[in-house]
Amino acid sequence: MTGSTGNSRTRVVVAGGGFAGVWAVRRLARDKNLDIILVDRNNYHTFLPLLYQVAAAELEPGQIAYPLRAIFRKYPNVHFVIGDVRSIDMKNKVLHTDGPHIPFDKLVVAMGSFTAFYGVPGADKHCFRLKNLEQAITLRNHIVSCFEQATHERNPDRKDRILTYTVVGGGPTGVEYAGALAELIRQPLTKDFPTLNTGQARVVLLEAGDGLLAGFPDHLRRYAFERLTHMGVDVRLNAKVTAVTPDSVELEGSSPLRTETVVWTAGVQGHALAGQMGLPTGRGGRVPVLPTLQVEGHPDVFVAGDMALPQGDSPAPLIAPNAIQQGALAADNIRAALAGRPLRAFRYRDKGSMATIGRAAAVVRMGKEHTATGFVAWVMWLFIHLLYLVGFRNRLFVLFTWAWDYIFFERAARIIIPRGPIEDDDAP
Amino acid sequence: MTGSTGNSRTRVVVAGGGFAGVWAVRRLARDKNLDIILVDRNNYHTFLPLLYQVAAAELEPGQIAYPLRAIFRKYPNVHFVIGDVRSIDMKNKVLHTDGPHIPFDKLVVAMGSFTAFYGVPGADKHCFRLKNLEQAITLRNHIVSCFEQATHERNPDRKDRILTYTVVGGGPTGVEYAGALAELIRQPLTKDFPTLNTGQARVVLLEAGDGLLAGFPDHLRRYAFERLTHMGVDVRLNAKVTAVTPDSVELEGSSPLRTETVVWTAGVQGHALAGQMGLPTGRGGRVPVLPTLQVEGHPDVFVAGDMALPQGDSPAPLIAPNAIQQGALAADNIRAALAGRPLRAFRYRDKGSMATIGRAAAVVRMGKEHTATGFVAWVMWLFIHLLYLVGFRNRLFVLFTWAWDYIFFERAARIIIPRGPIEDDDAP
Repeated sequence: MTGSTGNSRTRVVVAGGGFAGVWAVRRLARDKNLDIILVDRNNYHTFLPLLYQVAAAELEPGQIAYPLRAIFRKYPNVHFVIGDVRSIDMKNKVLHTDGPHIPFDKLVVAMGSFTAFYGVPGADKHCFRLKNLEQAITLRNHIVSCFEQATHERNPDRKDRILTYTVVGGGPTGVEYAGALAELIRQPLTKDFPTLNTGQARVVLLEAGDGLLAGFPDHLRRYAFERLTHMGVDVRLNAKVTAVTPDSVELEGSSPLRTETVVWTAGVQGHALAGQMGLPTGRGGRVPVLPTLQVEGHPDVFVAGDMALPQGDSPAPLIAPNAIQQGALAADNIRAALAGRPLRAFRYRDKGSMATIGRAAAVVRMGKEHTATGFVAWVMWLFIHLLYLVGFRNRLFVLFTWAWDYIFFERAARIIIPRGPIEDDDAP
Repeated sequence: MTGSTGNSRTRVVVAGGGFAGVWAVRRLARDKNLDIILVDRNNYHTFLPLLYQVAAAELEPGQIAYPLRAIFRKYPNVHFVIGDVRSIDMKNKVLHTDGPHIPFDKLVVAMGSFTAFYGVPGADKHCFRLKNLEQAITLRNHIVSCFEQATHERNPDRKDRILTYTVVGGGPTGVEYAGALAELIRQPLTKDFPTLNTGQARVVLLEAGDGLLAGFPDHLRRYAFERLTHMGVDVRLNAKVTAVTPDSVELEGSSPLRTETVVWTAGVQGHALAGQMGLPTGRGGRVPVLPTLQVEGHPDVFVAGDMALPQGDSPAPLIAPNAIQQGALAADNIRAALAGRPLRAFRYRDKGSMATIGRAAAVVRMGKEHTATGFVAWVMWLFIHLLYLVGFRNRLFVLFTWAWDYIFFERAARIIIPRGPIEDDDAP
């Protein structure tokens, strides 16, 4: 795969198998004259909008992950390469991975984002993240392990800290995770740990601003606050985190919160590769691109999804619909450029936004004007997420899991998933 | 939990949540005057007879694991403690774990077995094991990763080694895993890797004896051999492994087999703790016990399952039914001892044995005389395994997965499950 592309067909390389990358490949694949190579460090696409449910022991990891090879199996012109992207040789047009070096004619860089801690001391070291499947599994193992630990912890202060789960950030991810966690504790864990006073367990949601779900219509923001509070979540507005230690969160103007579990959902920044590529990086570590999603001075290189910061457009939220639209446009513009047609400028089509709040409740905004809350909103949320969840089989499984949980207040995925080195465990 | 048990109720501690431990707890729990404490290093029971299907990317780990707390939720007198058993203080009757120290009145030790390599050089270091969920996940990740590697391996010898999967041991586990692996390669992986010549991939099954499935009736053994051969498995009888290196298996009297994947299913030995307990260890590292399953000189300590070597009985196979029967008898004998009734001697009731061979075929022996092969045997195998699979929800999921695979020749669980340290992956 090294060496020049050297044949008459055009090779498009897509780095990243998230929403932007998968939608770019889907569009590109329709052109039978293109050879498309998709590169990702994992062999699966992760349905990130449901990641929080894996971290809340609601879904199994396999239910929100789908093999990339299987997604593109029906396209003979799509090839998959597993590998960590290391750098991009813009001059010679080669993508370097820890495995093969892949020459390209056109490139779409769509490697997503990282958690941003904004320099809060200790946050990087002590917080759990919720940006990929590994992190979700780690967090879920930790939550259930805390309950196991608490059963034989006799120091009441320590026990209190173990059972205090803190979520930083009142955006959709923070709201959804706090709600899911409150239900996990109130229902299945309470049943599983009869000797533990699970009333002692609590979920604290810290938001620096004066309301949850910034950007949503006001009455939806109030609904989310009321609903979470009703579910027993300790929602604290205007709570600015100044530091995180192994056993506390320090807050501006109030006493520290004693907790051993801090989940940071308060910010994202562009993938670190942007800097290493020798590309300019703008606000939030993202790559400023032309309205066509091309990198200035490198018309064969496109950036899409969370990494991209298109100029001239009002900033779009870093959510799946934005990534999908950018991935699709990058693909369209590549095909336009190859055909000598003019390229289009990116403009985010805001179809709305939504967040679920625990069991059978959600807030939904459609277009500029329509909103919904409660059960109706939750059914809409469910429908739209199932619609986009890649893979028919996964959809059925997920639906079955949800239906079960809805009826029985149960969680399937409560096992602490084995991790770490294996071979030595077994040595007698 | 440290200190004397100190109340009037009798405390029975069960170490190990496998078949023997779970069945012992179930029997003990019926006696409302007993407090039962189950200790395991994992918070779930693993349905080991289907472990090979996790390793063959057929089932998700969660489908064969069930939370121990959920199993015993309805028994208020059963308590679960997560912990690694470190040692047993026989004199003061305390079980030491890496967490709490647990005093007991009666103890059932049922911690299962390890892979035995019989001193074959390199085997311990270079072979994959198939005895617990971690190992199955590691193996499955490795198998799928090999295919990914092979797509960009240009050295033909190396590619050949990467695509040669070797299973050592022609017992039920070896036969079942070789069959499942052959089908994984022939169907879903071939579809997923269109550019790879998957015909190059092969499964080699090495058996030291002159036939597969020792102990099964002869015509079932021949059927298994023919069926696996028909499926493309390279079955080699009288193949004695003399050494394992990172890229080969050395065989007595023939040239080495070039392979980078060696799965060792050829032997088991008792859990290492037996020696550390200061107990006598007999053949295969197992603990010689009286016919009542008591340790000689320690009438309050019972050993059940793979760890136990009951005297006076012809040796029973180390399979689930044996563990279940021993766990139940240990429980019955504890209750008999507490009531002053005489204890019963263990006698293995051989209801039969079975092994599945790929898709829709199996061999089954019932009692001494009845046998079945092919599809009928496979349906029986399916039915019996579902019957014993703990947890109604898991049963439905597994049935759905199997039905799907049967119809579509598909595997769901083909993602390479994320493992290893997380936090640093994300640091920009």
